[in-house]
Amino acid sequence: MVYTIRVATLEDCKDIYRMIMELAKHEKVSDQVKIAQRDLEQDGFSKNPFFQSIIAEVPEQHRSKDGHSKVGYALYFFAYSSWKGRSVYMEDLYVMPEYRGKGIGKALMSKIAQLGLAAGCNQLNFAVLNWNKESMDFYLSQGCWDVTTGLDYHCMRCEGPALEALARGDPKN
Amino acid sequence: MVYTIRVATLEDCKDIYRMIMELAKHEKVSDQVKIAQRDLEQDGFSKNPFFQSIIAEVPEQHRSKDGHSKVGYALYFFAYSSWKGRSVYMEDLYVMPEYRGKGIGKALMSKIAQLGLAAGCNQLNFAVLNWNKESMDFYLSQGCWDVTTGLDYHCMRCEGPALEALARGDPKN
Repeated sequence: MVYTIRVATLEDCKDIYRMIMELAKHEKVSDQVKIAQRDLEQDGFSKNPFFQSIIAEVPEQHRSKDGHSKVGYALYFFAYSSWKGRSVYMEDLYVMPEYRGKGIGKALMSKIAQLGLAAGCNQLNFAVLNWNKESMDFYLSQGCWDVTTGLDYHCMRCEGPALEALARGDPKN
Repeated sequence: MVYTIRVATLEDCKDIYRMIMELAKHEKVSDQVKIAQRDLEQDGFSKNPFFQSIIAEVPEQHRSKDGHSKVGYALYFFAYSSWKGRSVYMEDLYVMPEYRGKGIGKALMSKIAQLGLAAGCNQLNFAVLNWNKESMDFYLSQGCWDVTTGLDYHCMRCEGPALEALARGDPKN
């Protein structure tokens, strides 16, 4: 199937938001999505954006059953490792179910690798849910390795009241 | 003890690099550090920097045994969650051994929380090595939670020849 991978524009936010919700449903966590389309517009398309994004698009004649021509996206940002230097972090990679198995996911990921290498990055990092065996197998087949298992890394998070208490410097939470 | 937490400048890169090496030795991975002081200067202090950093400094009379007045640092960058929006990622948090137990580590982390909240971030994320129980306990005491255990998240990485093959779009690695 013919498809195009291109840098996303402000006008793509409606479709990116739609696909973020589809991905969250697939991961069974749609109640966790707290952002709106407007946040994507502000955070990704103003000065000093917090993320970058790319879109996979098919021609008119290959529109989805629901009439969509934007059928996949990836969201990424530049990051840093104090050991290895510049890196790129892939936050999301998604292809609509009816367009899977055609190489679109790999083409999106390949584009991020290209953009990362062009910017001098040495690593592409991302996270995958352990139960998502299909995705894990795909990533492993591409030569990616599991940092959590390999180095016994634990991802930690501070948010909500704990983050506010930390910012205030409270003696104890 | 009196100490100051301030935003790092280009002139701090020598000390940040020294402390990155100290931290890597502490984590038993000093052979993994592939960057040089010059990389920190270029990547953190040019237009569109890849990271931000803050420094903990003590007055002259409290210099370390080796004569250092810059005794701790944190390195962070802004990131994005497609569920929760703007976030901040703490790549490194380090205080020299002879200055630990005085609240400097918490003050550095608190400053990142402040800067993150001021920039509209909803999350502070970071990683910790599982064997580093002392650090893990400190983070948990601050209300942070373990995403790896809680959501069964696996951090994945693509680098070196695998990253180059991915960028080229090779059919198989």
